[in-house]
Amino acid sequence: MNWENRLSKDAQSIKASEIRELLKILEDPEILSFAGGIPDPQLFPMDRVRDIRINLEKNPAADRQAMQYSQTEGYAPLRDWIADRCSTENTILERENVLITNGAQQSLTLLSTIFLEAGTKLAVASPTYLGALQVFGTRRPDYITVDTDENGIIPESLEEAFKKGARLFYTIPDFQNPGGMTIPEDRRVRIIELAHQYDVVIFEDTAYRTLYYDAPPPPSLLELEGAFLGKGQWQEKGLVIQMGTASKTLMPALRVGWTTAPKIILDKMVLLKQANDLHTSTLNQIIAHELFFNGLDEHVAILREVYGKRRDAMLDALRQYIPNSASYTVPKGGMFVWITLPEGMDAKDLLEKSIAHEKLAFVPGKAFFADEKGANTLRLSFSTCSPDVIRDGMKRLCALIQREQMAQVA
Amino acid sequence: MNWENRLSKDAQSIKASEIRELLKILEDPEILSFAGGIPDPQLFPMDRVRDIRINLEKNPAADRQAMQYSQTEGYAPLRDWIADRCSTENTILERENVLITNGAQQSLTLLSTIFLEAGTKLAVASPTYLGALQVFGTRRPDYITVDTDENGIIPESLEEAFKKGARLFYTIPDFQNPGGMTIPEDRRVRIIELAHQYDVVIFEDTAYRTLYYDAPPPPSLLELEGAFLGKGQWQEKGLVIQMGTASKTLMPALRVGWTTAPKIILDKMVLLKQANDLHTSTLNQIIAHELFFNGLDEHVAILREVYGKRRDAMLDALRQYIPNSASYTVPKGGMFVWITLPEGMDAKDLLEKSIAHEKLAFVPGKAFFADEKGANTLRLSFSTCSPDVIRDGMKRLCALIQREQMAQVA
Repeated sequence: MNWENRLSKDAQSIKASEIRELLKILEDPEILSFAGGIPDPQLFPMDRVRDIRINLEKNPAADRQAMQYSQTEGYAPLRDWIADRCSTENTILERENVLITNGAQQSLTLLSTIFLEAGTKLAVASPTYLGALQVFGTRRPDYITVDTDENGIIPESLEEAFKKGARLFYTIPDFQNPGGMTIPEDRRVRIIELAHQYDVVIFEDTAYRTLYYDAPPPPSLLELEGAFLGKGQWQEKGLVIQMGTASKTLMPALRVGWTTAPKIILDKMVLLKQANDLHTSTLNQIIAHELFFNGLDEHVAILREVYGKRRDAMLDALRQYIPNSASYTVPKGGMFVWITLPEGMDAKDLLEKSIAHEKLAFVPGKAFFADEKGANTLRLSFSTCSPDVIRDGMKRLCALIQREQMAQVA
Repeated sequence: MNWENRLSKDAQSIKASEIRELLKILEDPEILSFAGGIPDPQLFPMDRVRDIRINLEKNPAADRQAMQYSQTEGYAPLRDWIADRCSTENTILERENVLITNGAQQSLTLLSTIFLEAGTKLAVASPTYLGALQVFGTRRPDYITVDTDENGIIPESLEEAFKKGARLFYTIPDFQNPGGMTIPEDRRVRIIELAHQYDVVIFEDTAYRTLYYDAPPPPSLLELEGAFLGKGQWQEKGLVIQMGTASKTLMPALRVGWTTAPKIILDKMVLLKQANDLHTSTLNQIIAHELFFNGLDEHVAILREVYGKRRDAMLDALRQYIPNSASYTVPKGGMFVWITLPEGMDAKDLLEKSIAHEKLAFVPGKAFFADEKGANTLRLSFSTCSPDVIRDGMKRLCALIQREQMAQVA
């Protein structure tokens, strides 16, 4: 049976990710993994979840109703909490600006269907989130890549992309996945000015925003756009569509995320989500709401303390052991450190050796680039290992890089 | 802000459903609703769900892991159970043939992206499931409609559709939504022959298959295709892609459904689901698996008994009260009776009057047609009301139809 000629052109463009195939080895418990951009399950608030379940069972009628079909838009108290939390001095969000999705990944999917089709010009950072490239890719846009430095997006490069006709721009301003960079406030202001000058819609992904380890990040693009436009103007003139998730601060398998958008776009998203999967699991929305509403800040404070120490351990070890010919980013939050290997060293080859000889995994960087760059880059995650394990792992990884470099020179 | 010219052509084609807008009134508890195709929450196995939760908590490590990111393909024990359950004498399904989705609705979404693009010729019954038309519509196919009678799809009409170039055919062979019809075995055999003669992929939607009230339905299209192809041939030559759901037999808000497909197609679906929302809620998959694995047949036997009596009550009342100028289908399972009103009577007008004067709701039939037919049809659901309430409701609805007819004649 020849299936290939039956598939849509979009489907034909979907390819298996070489990286994800490679990383299937992570199911081997012997492998020490700095690969996954995942939270530490030991930090999941399981006791709170149990209490929420028990409380739900005390109200059998509500418990039962939570298992019935429900509104596509999402659980109203959760939408209200998000609207309130994301509102700023100049931009008041309402319940009707919020759609609950199956994680921010589904927000990206809905936005892709709504805004992208074959040939749509879409600006993305080099590098950027692999999962975003995967879902955008199913709509076959024309990527325009934007250069970054240790402060993230370079405004001059962004303006070039906008001049080339980009209609949309996807960005993770805080503790970027994969680069770890945070865009400073002056650049954010410039991004908003440019978006309005060139009339470009911005998808702002805030997945890591609350996970800061030094000081809170600068105001979000949504907030800065409010200041740029003036009080109460966003509903009419806003170009920033923001998405968030419970996956990094609570638990990924809740599959609860959200999008905030001007109502006219949110209404489209609701119709599309209704067609796509009717609604997100109600029980999971109720759990997310309870966890957010009661004690989120205390819970995130714990995450910041634990992850912050792990970040410090990784940076300390890299400072001590990394060869001079390689470099690394210094993240102020999130889960990732980004390594640039010596020119000519291939991170995919390095991963194969690292797994074979050190039983240690990371993600080669190339998959995070919409163009064909980044063969000598890699992403490390510090979120799931203890400081001691991180230090030992970095020491061994750096020694491997050193050995590879010697072998190259020889 | 003019958003319309920023949207993809797919997004521009998404329109609000007039019917769904109208039915928002159902949130009014005073309205007696025969509208929703939804299970009765009083029949949800809540005690079993509580026991499953308690058991999960006894194994804290597993409970915690259930909240972490997990495999896109789905929870392995659930996939195995489905593979086993859907295997037939000639076609053995394996775990790798099964993808867990957020309800069968997401199965339709993934299949739409994979097989449809603007202009793809897609055959659907007149009438067919509204939600399928909504998601297919986001890919802008060319519909070719297939006529039905009290035995569902008419093979001669299907062959016409295939001759016109249909590449795909979507069907609900058992207790169809909305028509309530079941396709008899001889027609099913003919459908399989035609699909292979004209090389057409079939999406078989089995949402209501286990909810039979007289006798089990004929073998599924998947099973009959196995017999047609011979033992062990389906993986290579199969054209039937089947989907199922926990929404009708267990609880909709679990958002757990599945697709079974030849591996080459299933692999594409996995990549697309990974891009779309990573995976389905693990906790919900575990609950679904436990409920399926331990005592599904006993639970469904209760549903059959309760829903069967409600069906009988609806049919008895219609037999007694419906004017001769209208007709109704006699479903052998599922949730729906389909009414054809006197020629020229508009079901949407009737609904407005029914809500205003009788506080009674149903779904006007037109939205279930891919062409512009069916203005004088409507769908009744018997799944959520007691026999007494159903009898009273039918008596009042029939009287309203009678009054409307008198007014038309006058």
